[in-house]
Amino acid sequence: MENKKRILTGIRPTGALHLGHYVGALHNWISLQEEYDCNFLIADYQALGDHFNDIELIKKSVIDVTLDWLSVGLDPEKSNFVIQSYVPEHAELSMLLSFVTPLGMLERNPTLKGELDSLPVERRSAGFFNYPISQVADILLPRAHLVPVGEDQAPHLEMSREIARKFNNMYGYVFPEPETLIGKVGRLSGTDGKGKMSKSQGNVILLSDTKESVDKKVRSMYTDPNRIRADIPGKIEGNPVFQYLDAFTENDKNVDDFKERYKTGNIGDVEIKNYLSNILNDFLDPIRDKRAYFEKNINLVEEALDTGVTNARKLANETMQLVRDKMKISSYKKVW
Amino acid sequence: MENKKRILTGIRPTGALHLGHYVGALHNWISLQEEYDCNFLIADYQALGDHFNDIELIKKSVIDVTLDWLSVGLDPEKSNFVIQSYVPEHAELSMLLSFVTPLGMLERNPTLKGELDSLPVERRSAGFFNYPISQVADILLPRAHLVPVGEDQAPHLEMSREIARKFNNMYGYVFPEPETLIGKVGRLSGTDGKGKMSKSQGNVILLSDTKESVDKKVRSMYTDPNRIRADIPGKIEGNPVFQYLDAFTENDKNVDDFKERYKTGNIGDVEIKNYLSNILNDFLDPIRDKRAYFEKNINLVEEALDTGVTNARKLANETMQLVRDKMKISSYKKVW
Repeated sequence: MENKKRILTGIRPTGALHLGHYVGALHNWISLQEEYDCNFLIADYQALGDHFNDIELIKKSVIDVTLDWLSVGLDPEKSNFVIQSYVPEHAELSMLLSFVTPLGMLERNPTLKGELDSLPVERRSAGFFNYPISQVADILLPRAHLVPVGEDQAPHLEMSREIARKFNNMYGYVFPEPETLIGKVGRLSGTDGKGKMSKSQGNVILLSDTKESVDKKVRSMYTDPNRIRADIPGKIEGNPVFQYLDAFTENDKNVDDFKERYKTGNIGDVEIKNYLSNILNDFLDPIRDKRAYFEKNINLVEEALDTGVTNARKLANETMQLVRDKMKISSYKKVW
Repeated sequence: MENKKRILTGIRPTGALHLGHYVGALHNWISLQEEYDCNFLIADYQALGDHFNDIELIKKSVIDVTLDWLSVGLDPEKSNFVIQSYVPEHAELSMLLSFVTPLGMLERNPTLKGELDSLPVERRSAGFFNYPISQVADILLPRAHLVPVGEDQAPHLEMSREIARKFNNMYGYVFPEPETLIGKVGRLSGTDGKGKMSKSQGNVILLSDTKESVDKKVRSMYTDPNRIRADIPGKIEGNPVFQYLDAFTENDKNVDDFKERYKTGNIGDVEIKNYLSNILNDFLDPIRDKRAYFEKNINLVEEALDTGVTNARKLANETMQLVRDKMKISSYKKVW
């Protein structure tokens, strides 16, 4: 355990997880935990940044996310499941890092600017403005070596590297400069074909959906809008049905056959969608079984969180001791 | 103790304290500690906001300030001496309050804007931008009822009242809305006649200055620049020599006499300055004695800080428990 490199990654608890999360992150995480010392963070502080008036949602989502993680096979005996707000050292490190973070770095952050602009004014909190620092603290608190990211998240990690470097140069070495670990991750669009997936838009298939719900969602899935009859040739690209089939099958001759027949107008949507429903339900069945097990053994969920938070705090305290020592704010007694 | 109203006030540790601090604050604090449960804060986090590359100064100043406080008669048996960075709950509350603080409240804060503009770019940290929230957290963490302020500081307190109200309305009552306590405080200008006093400008008389240093500083004190000979009538207003005499004497016939003779050109500067030197040294002598005592008994200084920090953390933990309970982020176990 000690010689493994540490990974930090996480998720904002603002709803139960869906197939997009699986394809884009969880699938990768499951394999990472074999090789690395993984810290999986439930970033509820960051969710508070724009959901401070909907704590019930966050609170419920913390449990939903934990159940989702356990159900897909993240293993609390191998990895730490961490709730951000249960590690108060996070706030302390965020504050200390905010002093070495130039204000301009936040003001000029294009992602942050875009997100702030898209929020209604009343949800633009000072805390939200600071969330890039909070993210840096997420990564630096466990002194993570690696952060699995999609390519579009590189700028956030660049900020972590910059702050780590600045702190180390100014006060002495504490933080490894976190490196990106670009994994084999895919991307799904919504069942309505839109790029942005969200539970509130009703365009996602949840990891916790029942068979009936999956069947219904797949039946009403967006396909090629120009293909109004089964004998009209259709487009594969940007067609969520085929995107989902590609994501959840491997070297499947049937899928190749469907594509060929779709492009030439020789197959009805129903046949393909039924096939996709079966594929997804086959994929989700063991996940459903595990979820049912953990729902019946809630103590195991609590234990997972207890253990994860305890381990995370131990590591966080080590880091804070190093930080305070290097910054020489460790003890007024040492002045004399 | 329990039934007394709680006061929070403090100072940024960026240098030893001077007569301006005494007249503008300490004099008032000394009397407040008889009637109230006072928390005197050494705001080192806030000093870090624009001094993150000069921690030695902050660290030394924490001790200088504590010695200054003890020497003038602030009493750690009556009041809590608190070092901000030793109460990590401060960072936690700051972060939580940042979520209910609209970003616009910081962006539109005229004091903050002025201070940021006057800082060199490389010292404008994100942490400095957040310091008004940190100040609110200072006040709300001990659930202070009263904050002694000069009239110009009212806007900062207004923000504390607004955030307290917003939190209480949104999540349930935790924080009394802090009221201003406008005390009998004076204001001194620098020995060079300038409004802005600072040790680095060399225009202040420190509470820790020796007799020789006071004599020298008073001798070179700025007076009426148009009065180039003792027989020229001079101006009393804006004349630091008379301002200091007024601040450190009461119903002193000699001072009245000096003023009369100064206005009519019948007295030399030296006579007045010698008198002022004596007044100031008489005032500082018992302070010097106490400082010498505490410097010889450093354990008492450490004890003062230990006790203050311990008491402050006890109170801070109570507050954080209330905050977490009201925000319902207290325990994931309670979800079930």
